[in-house]
Amino acid sequence: MGGAGFTLGQLAAILKGTVDGDAARVVTGVASLEAAGPQHVAFVADGRYRQAALASRAGAFLAADDVHDLPAPVIRCREPRLTLIELLHLFHPPASVVPGVDASARVAADARVHPTATVGALAVVGAGAVIGAHAHLHPLVYVGPGAEIGEESVLHPHVVVREGVRVGRRVIVHAGAVLGADGFGYTWDGSAHRKIPQVGSVVIEDDVELGANTTIDRGTLGPTIVRRGVKIDNLVMVAHNVEIGEDTVIAAQTGISGSCRIGRGVVLGGQVGIGDHVTVGDGAMLSSQSGVVSDVPAGVKLAGTYGRPLMEFQRIWVTEAQLPDMLRRLRALERRLEELTKGE
Amino acid sequence: MGGAGFTLGQLAAILKGTVDGDAARVVTGVASLEAAGPQHVAFVADGRYRQAALASRAGAFLAADDVHDLPAPVIRCREPRLTLIELLHLFHPPASVVPGVDASARVAADARVHPTATVGALAVVGAGAVIGAHAHLHPLVYVGPGAEIGEESVLHPHVVVREGVRVGRRVIVHAGAVLGADGFGYTWDGSAHRKIPQVGSVVIEDDVELGANTTIDRGTLGPTIVRRGVKIDNLVMVAHNVEIGEDTVIAAQTGISGSCRIGRGVVLGGQVGIGDHVTVGDGAMLSSQSGVVSDVPAGVKLAGTYGRPLMEFQRIWVTEAQLPDMLRRLRALERRLEELTKGE
Amino acid sequence: MGGAGFTLGQLAAILKGTVDGDAARVVTGVASLEAAGPQHVAFVADGRYRQAALASRAGAFLAADDVHDLPAPVIRCREPRLTLIELLHLFHPPASVVPGVDASARVAADARVHPTATVGALAVVGAGAVIGAHAHLHPLVYVGPGAEIGEESVLHPHVVVREGVRVGRRVIVHAGAVLGADGFGYTWDGSAHRKIPQVGSVVIEDDVELGANTTIDRGTLGPTIVRRGVKIDNLVMVAHNVEIGEDTVIAAQTGISGSCRIGRGVVLGGQVGIGDHVTVGDGAMLSSQSGVVSDVPAGVKLAGTYGRPLMEFQRIWVTEAQLPDMLRRLRALERRLEELTKGE
Repeated sequence: MGGAGFTLGQLAAILKGTVDGDAARVVTGVASLEAAGPQHVAFVADGRYRQAALASRAGAFLAADDVHDLPAPVIRCREPRLTLIELLHLFHPPASVVPGVDASARVAADARVHPTATVGALAVVGAGAVIGAHAHLHPLVYVGPGAEIGEESVLHPHVVVREGVRVGRRVIVHAGAVLGADGFGYTWDGSAHRKIPQVGSVVIEDDVELGANTTIDRGTLGPTIVRRGVKIDNLVMVAHNVEIGEDTVIAAQTGISGSCRIGRGVVLGGQVGIGDHVTVGDGAMLSSQSGVVSDVPAGVKLAGTYGRPLMEFQRIWVTEAQLPDMLRRLRALERRLEELTKGE
Repeated sequence: MGGAGFTLGQLAAILKGTVDGDAARVVTGVASLEAAGPQHVAFVADGRYRQAALASRAGAFLAADDVHDLPAPVIRCREPRLTLIELLHLFHPPASVVPGVDASARVAADARVHPTATVGALAVVGAGAVIGAHAHLHPLVYVGPGAEIGEESVLHPHVVVREGVRVGRRVIVHAGAVLGADGFGYTWDGSAHRKIPQVGSVVIEDDVELGANTTIDRGTLGPTIVRRGVKIDNLVMVAHNVEIGEDTVIAAQTGISGSCRIGRGVVLGGQVGIGDHVTVGDGAMLSSQSGVVSDVPAGVKLAGTYGRPLMEFQRIWVTEAQLPDMLRRLRALERRLEELTKGE
Repeated sequence: MGGAGFTLGQLAAILKGTVDGDAARVVTGVASLEAAGPQHVAFVADGRYRQAALASRAGAFLAADDVHDLPAPVIRCREPRLTLIELLHLFHPPASVVPGVDASARVAADARVHPTATVGALAVVGAGAVIGAHAHLHPLVYVGPGAEIGEESVLHPHVVVREGVRVGRRVIVHAGAVLGADGFGYTWDGSAHRKIPQVGSVVIEDDVELGANTTIDRGTLGPTIVRRGVKIDNLVMVAHNVEIGEDTVIAAQTGISGSCRIGRGVVLGGQVGIGDHVTVGDGAMLSSQSGVVSDVPAGVKLAGTYGRPLMEFQRIWVTEAQLPDMLRRLRALERRLEELTKGE
């Protein structure tokens, strides 16, 4: 990986930083502290990684301000974490994509594919679908009738976007994700579960990223909505009629039941479960594997079943270890008191 | 959405109901109470939605018997929840499907595809497979050798039905679901895990619905069986040799381990885990995120780890909040009793 | 199932065992104790299945040494569990596969597909990819640019192997699994989550099996590594930069967060969650639905939230049932002591 080399001086100029040490040294790629060799820049996120940096064979470092006395030249900049992103883009420019529709793709006659868009091999684009400028449908993607994919969005292989779903701009959908499957709704008619037609849709706003094999179901009547900037990891389930607020982050394997309202800037850990019709306030944080079935106020941190405050949850957890001992002590007290009162 | 309009009188006649109010009013679609405008019918499931109905701009309501004094005409019928289904079908008739095999699909020469069936673009049908009347294979579906898809069943894009799997009639399989992957079985030979060939199959009976990216593994020797009318949500795992009884409902991300017997009319919440060889009795309910490793009697409601009775689970949960305080009080009692006996 | 028949004598000779009973009896397949008829061999794993064996209609048994007095002839061998595998292969030889590239597959001009490899209908192989000898890509598989698939590996339908991912020899990847999706990494820039480019890869070593719809994300800089002999069930999430040691077994729906180091011979139950940067020692076992956020020593068995020792977890669980009662008794003690001291 990596291709052409840069001197540290060149990198510092591009990244608007400075070099502590030999600015003429040449590096050809970025690597982790452990894997780096003399040809690599390695990233030192903060002081906790100082020991690893001292042991590293990296030829140069991009380091946070508070990390000093490193064994190789250091690129210094104002925002090292954001600069790392630029550095990675420098050494790994996006693969060039040839616009156009692959001969083996099946695109409906009345679909509108922008001339700058790319439709890969064996992809399917349904009737009346719209594919925006510079959008990239990888091979074997399915975009259903009437669906819309916004400018510069990327659908990885095997993504399914069902009929009528609207995907915004600069959205990334990872392989195998399914947008717009039917919501899970039935009515018991006395002898069978009767399916409630799910005639709503899904709206994914701009700058969203959706993980591999994640599923976002369509609403029953209106849309399921994922707002601008939301980031969702792999194997997450978002049920019908849910709305997820801007910039919320959802880790892998979490499930959100029907009609929930998740606020802005919320953080959901992995394997979290949220019952139906729950509102989660802005900025709330739910720990991994927690579950909530009632509304969550803004800004709180919850953990565990029925979502307790994190600190309370941890206090209980610690005390629980003494529970068998507590029961013994309780019995002992009862006996002693019994004897005491008997003796009276 | 919605196309042609109906007067409320026309709707009432079709739905075998009556109109409270102006039967000549025309509506063109169904919407939620919040999103509805004067051209929509909105559904009022029960009295809990009365406030939302009073605030709604809907042109008409379909309402439960116990909801009165609404701000627009009301369609009254005997079973409002079932009538909602009919109403949705009226305004959203299923898209017409052209029967036949798409030119880009790959169908084995000896597969039998009924002339009324639809095989979409780039779908694959293996040797000896049978596709029933009016079945609908969406684009990019895979049906393996010897598999059978019953009449009127629908396989959404990217569904995988592996060799020999049998799918009944009127079954709906959502995008990305995998039927018939190998069960997870190995024997340690002293130096490596040796794979036990999984030569069984999967049988999906009539009227089943399977969610997006759900996986139903094939049995080791015999079949994994999903009985008539079972409804399974997204990202659910059903392991080898499991049998799921009629009309059971399973919410998203639940996992059922090998050789379990799940009864009829069981309800499994989301993210439930069931250990191997467990029998769950008819009509039992397992709360979301609960886990069971031993048999569950018919009709009980369980929650939490190792599945406690729901009421007991909730009592414990409430008491747990006082656990740190209980420990303090226990210590205080011990000290006081110590002093008391010392004083003797 | 099953095809040609064998006499028990023939089977015993092939399997290097002996027959207790009529060696001339002919059987045509293997079945479970419950489903077997007179034409089947059924497997009796150990004494716990003796009752089922007595009730079985099987024509013969393959039985563990400690199971005697069965109602039909018995094949005896040294390692019955391993012999079962051989027996299944005898009756279910792997379907013969025609080598070569299907005319409908899309293989890049500079991809190297071994002449003995099979590339199924509508599969896609990207530029510079390498497909090894006797490898089998089922229909609708995607192998990205520069990816490598080792000898005799099998990719089931709809598997996605993204660019640069390396899959070893004799690896089985089940339908819908995604190898090499971007890791989940962002930096907040004050107004939005900025994506950290995920430029690492995935390395799957030899003899690994990966379940249906499982996802293994690519590393940020270096590779995510799954070592030789690892077996992973369906719907599992392995995040970026994780390394999983040899022969480790991971049950369905488990999630491993970024940068974890999982040792050799570890067993993770279903729906386990492991927080980021956690090291799990060799041979450790984590019970289903447990969660850990700190390092796990080698060889321990943990359960529950924050992973307690299994025995401790179970003691706490048992005592918890008395928690509401304990609170009552604590209050009673406090009252009695109050009265006692008041009385002084």
